[in-house]
Amino acid sequence: MKFIVRKEDLYNGIKIVERATSQKAVQPVLYNILIETIDNKIRLTATDLVLTVITTVDAQIEQAGKITLPAKKLNEIVSKLGNELVTFEMEEGGTSVNISCQKSKFDIIGISANEFPPEVYNYEIDETKCFDIELKPFLKAIRQAGFAAASYEVSNLLSGIVCDFSNGILEIASTDGNRLARVREKINSDITEQTQLIIPSRTLNEFMKMGSFIEDETIKVCKDKSTIVLKTEKTLTISRLLEGQFPKYNQLIPTESPKQAIVNVSQLIAALERVSVMVNDKTSIVKMLFADNELTLSADTPDSGKSEDKIDIQYTAEELLIAFNYKFVLDALRIIESDEIIIGLNASLSATVLKPNSEDDFICLIMPVQIR
Amino acid sequence: MKFIVRKEDLYNGIKIVERATSQKAVQPVLYNILIETIDNKIRLTATDLVLTVITTVDAQIEQAGKITLPAKKLNEIVSKLGNELVTFEMEEGGTSVNISCQKSKFDIIGISANEFPPEVYNYEIDETKCFDIELKPFLKAIRQAGFAAASYEVSNLLSGIVCDFSNGILEIASTDGNRLARVREKINSDITEQTQLIIPSRTLNEFMKMGSFIEDETIKVCKDKSTIVLKTEKTLTISRLLEGQFPKYNQLIPTESPKQAIVNVSQLIAALERVSVMVNDKTSIVKMLFADNELTLSADTPDSGKSEDKIDIQYTAEELLIAFNYKFVLDALRIIESDEIIIGLNASLSATVLKPNSEDDFICLIMPVQIR
Repeated sequence: MKFIVRKEDLYNGIKIVERATSQKAVQPVLYNILIETIDNKIRLTATDLVLTVITTVDAQIEQAGKITLPAKKLNEIVSKLGNELVTFEMEEGGTSVNISCQKSKFDIIGISANEFPPEVYNYEIDETKCFDIELKPFLKAIRQAGFAAASYEVSNLLSGIVCDFSNGILEIASTDGNRLARVREKINSDITEQTQLIIPSRTLNEFMKMGSFIEDETIKVCKDKSTIVLKTEKTLTISRLLEGQFPKYNQLIPTESPKQAIVNVSQLIAALERVSVMVNDKTSIVKMLFADNELTLSADTPDSGKSEDKIDIQYTAEELLIAFNYKFVLDALRIIESDEIIIGLNASLSATVLKPNSEDDFICLIMPVQIR
Repeated sequence: MKFIVRKEDLYNGIKIVERATSQKAVQPVLYNILIETIDNKIRLTATDLVLTVITTVDAQIEQAGKITLPAKKLNEIVSKLGNELVTFEMEEGGTSVNISCQKSKFDIIGISANEFPPEVYNYEIDETKCFDIELKPFLKAIRQAGFAAASYEVSNLLSGIVCDFSNGILEIASTDGNRLARVREKINSDITEQTQLIIPSRTLNEFMKMGSFIEDETIKVCKDKSTIVLKTEKTLTISRLLEGQFPKYNQLIPTESPKQAIVNVSQLIAALERVSVMVNDKTSIVKMLFADNELTLSADTPDSGKSEDKIDIQYTAEELLIAFNYKFVLDALRIIESDEIIIGLNASLSATVLKPNSEDDFICLIMPVQIR
């Protein structure tokens, strides 16, 4: 195997695929990136057996070959090279690759490509099962409505993000049972029939992080049995889908709230951050008292002390005391792209709605906690 | 107790003294900052019983009193307050302090000031035992020659930094047995007789970090039995001195080196960082071959691979292969304020000298390691 590649191109490729390498692998080869020569390109693949990312990098191929190299060491080496041409060279049948760039030389010991799970990198896409969507609104929707997924095992449905693709509208939602986020985003797509997919949140989060390296305006979304493929010009993100009936979350969202407050987002974030100094670490409970155009926030921990803060809001309904895990409120506030939010309240133990005071069709539902 | 203080002044004071709070205290009160009202000021004190830092902050005193409050919570609260006046209030004989600023209120539970070690904050300075020195060159010298101290227990002499004060010249040195750093800095001082002090490196490192909050041009250095006090207008840094005979390090520094190389500092740092990717984590050994105006660096780890890099240098002496813990070399290179260094070599197992190719009187000695 011998090929020559530009450092910058190779480094971008490594940064894209390394997100899929396993963090705690049963097989050592899953810590590695598979490198294969193909026509005028090299193909990089990494997988943890649930998520697989494949990308191609332009290269001058002198001799065909393939090998897997440890992702971490490879990244370290390539990141430190000068911004020049890099040569990779390996003897036929060997596992030690010589990497050279200007006066720098490395011999790095890999694992034979034959040990890399073949079902992963021989994946074939049935193009008839794909549809195109715009990338930017898709990424925005994931960022807005993907954060509320449960951080359980990947087998639990609530650890997934539900994506409802239809012509013109993309609906994305996630919930961990204590809170729920839903966004509806206008999107150009050539999809013909409505398709609901439950995608593991790790898959979409890693895809979102790769977003900055992807220049494509549209991507292909392909569903094949229990697998989803997100395909850009150079990169394939392949992931298992979660199967089952996702909770009918739209039924949970109150259609109207009897009490409404309009609140400045940055003032509420600052007040929550101050009050949270005295929050009980075990419960994270902050109490909120809505009354007379004022919101009073308070927290306390028995041996440590108490805190209280007030901000001016627009609220003329009946006085209401309600308590939340303040982290859920902060998560929602930090996602909202609006100066003001509307908080829709009902009673102390009713689901509370947060939505931007703007045209954005984003909603976050938070369950309050009981206080004595 | 009741006083009013500007948030910014108080926050600076907390940042100065909190460095002395204990990290693993036997007595909970050592996690706390002692706050005492004095005339038109509050005094803040923190200690871990080896290092004590005391500072004063301008305040409007309404009612005298004192209390200790947990440093971490206090910092968190004050950092998040608006940049306004802050009121501290405590009932006579209480331990719960009410802190208020604009619409923010906190009740924070402290520990009685009576539990704070009294020997620490009733410290009196004998001004006849003090001399003045310029602050800036003192801080520069600590930064340059303090890094080589051993990170042993504070009782070991090598965990100290030796400071030799005399009229016009300050000499600072530290060594952990494998390397040694020494600097001689011109300094204005009114010292009358030469004084050698061995100061715990933690004391000087914390003092160096406080440097950015200190506006004084000169400070007082006071030695009283086994205690040193560094006194600025507002702040006292009090520390135990280490006692014993520090190794006669000047005798260890070779007066001349038979082989000399002139090397670009940033090129050598970059090459060391690249080569170190393949360093054996247990030994950190990088080999250096000096020959024909070229330096070849190399490293290897049995199961991982090898690395090699070359840089152009000025070196015409006989070829020499020598090996170092590369971290010691990097530490020295990152301290040197010069584009080029002179490396003074003798033989593969002789102490090697690194010094800036400039007027600065700084020298770093590194012991090589044996290679087979």
